[in-house]
Amino acid sequence: MPASLTEIQAFLAAEFPQNRCQVVAVGERASTVRQPIGPGELRPGGTVSGPVLMTVADVALYVAILGEIGIVPLAVTTSLNVNFLRKPRAQADIRGECRLMKLGRRLAVGEVWLYSEGLAEPVAHAVGTYALPADRP
Amino acid sequence: MPASLTEIQAFLAAEFPQNRCQVVAVGERASTVRQPIGPGELRPGGTVSGPVLMTVADVALYVAILGEIGIVPLAVTTSLNVNFLRKPRAQADIRGECRLMKLGRRLAVGEVWLYSEGLAEPVAHAVGTYALPADRP
Amino acid sequence: MPASLTEIQAFLAAEFPQNRCQVVAVGERASTVRQPIGPGELRPGGTVSGPVLMTVADVALYVAILGEIGIVPLAVTTSLNVNFLRKPRAQADIRGECRLMKLGRRLAVGEVWLYSEGLAEPVAHAVGTYALPADRP
Amino acid sequence: MPASLTEIQAFLAAEFPQNRCQVVAVGERASTVRQPIGPGELRPGGTVSGPVLMTVADVALYVAILGEIGIVPLAVTTSLNVNFLRKPRAQADIRGECRLMKLGRRLAVGEVWLYSEGLAEPVAHAVGTYALPADRP
Repeated sequence: MPASLTEIQAFLAAEFPQNRCQVVAVGERASTVRQPIGPGELRPGGTVSGPVLMTVADVALYVAILGEIGIVPLAVTTSLNVNFLRKPRAQADIRGECRLMKLGRRLAVGEVWLYSEGLAEPVAHAVGTYALPADRP
Repeated sequence: MPASLTEIQAFLAAEFPQNRCQVVAVGERASTVRQPIGPGELRPGGTVSGPVLMTVADVALYVAILGEIGIVPLAVTTSLNVNFLRKPRAQADIRGECRLMKLGRRLAVGEVWLYSEGLAEPVAHAVGTYALPADRP
Repeated sequence: MPASLTEIQAFLAAEFPQNRCQVVAVGERASTVRQPIGPGELRPGGTVSGPVLMTVADVALYVAILGEIGIVPLAVTTSLNVNFLRKPRAQADIRGECRLMKLGRRLAVGEVWLYSEGLAEPVAHAVGTYALPADRP
Repeated sequence: MPASLTEIQAFLAAEFPQNRCQVVAVGERASTVRQPIGPGELRPGGTVSGPVLMTVADVALYVAILGEIGIVPLAVTTSLNVNFLRKPRAQADIRGECRLMKLGRRLAVGEVWLYSEGLAEPVAHAVGTYALPADRP
């Protein structure tokens, strides 16, 4: 049973209290998330660190999956492939836009485009795979 | 000119103050790094979060490159591909062992095996690419 | 100087005589290619072999790049990451649709969606990187 | 039940008659394969084509898996990530050396190093994932 935007927001707040990435939209095999950028997310040269971008990609993918199969804590990332394309802006939030390309019984695969708010061209692109529990409802 | 272990440690401490990953060894196109694991690195289920593992892989790769070409702040990650293999232990440090497979004029490629201290089998494996400045010394 | 569809077709025919993949469209940082499927492209179970799909992805990416920077034989693939999503149809051509996500001075990165003609959902997705000659015209 | 070298050779000859890649060794979660290189495997510039290297990687991974779980035709590649490191020699066979990094109930993950016979440094490196049938013997 799919989970709604507010259900996913509540689940992430309860179970991933360290997560700062916000869920903006979910549904139709897609999601949009937004990561506020502050000093803790920057690296030398005044740019967003790679691990922050990878985290946003992973959250966007997880949210898109929960939006289809419901709150399934045991879904786990099995692979993530990220290409870093352009230097993100230092003072802009990062927006992640995910679209699932496959939602099978055991595996989900999706891509995530990452943007610095205010830049038209993406700063990174990720493809990730999640293993789904076999006995989910 | 290659950078030594202490030069790299000093560079990371000065330029990446948020980094908690320690450099244990570097040289001969390889590196070993160690990430202490505390509550901030865990996710629900008592395991190390994926982004922490990806961060360790990225640091290990960067350190191995600095160990060959010297302190070059402008080297940037262009891609990182991570496979998550097993659940890391909650109370054990993560050790990253990197070996460069190519060190070209413009690109460096390396692999990183990630281990939970105390487990023989790796918890993750990463392959990453760095773009190197063309006009480095 | 960008190369046209007919220039790219002539170049591939002359330089890659073994290539059976046809160029259908090129331009605006994109390409469409088509691979006829016959007995030589199938594997047991009556499906298109993975290497055929990877070849189509590689050609689509190369064509999209030539369409932007002109006929540059020395562009070489540096990485290719493919996710196989669904079983291709045995009797249908494979169509590859490529879009470049970055066209830098030294690196081009693009994604390719692969379809079995007649199926709406993609059979595979690839992300590839090409190294570009530094001294191209 | 693991398959032996001769069982795997017979299976490939019967089921994949187009395959020209030879199985040299298998066992202990590893395999070695060898691809003869002739005019059909070359591309302009006198080098081995990328798809040939990807095919060898895929075969090496498949063989290593069969060596552990037995002849399971339904194992299918779900992802393959290849980094091309150096130009292969035109007149030398390609040798693939695979090692499995995970052999789970549902997924197997392995890496493959690809060499031109006579060159010490690898020409490519691949990481691939296979989905395994859930109800295998």
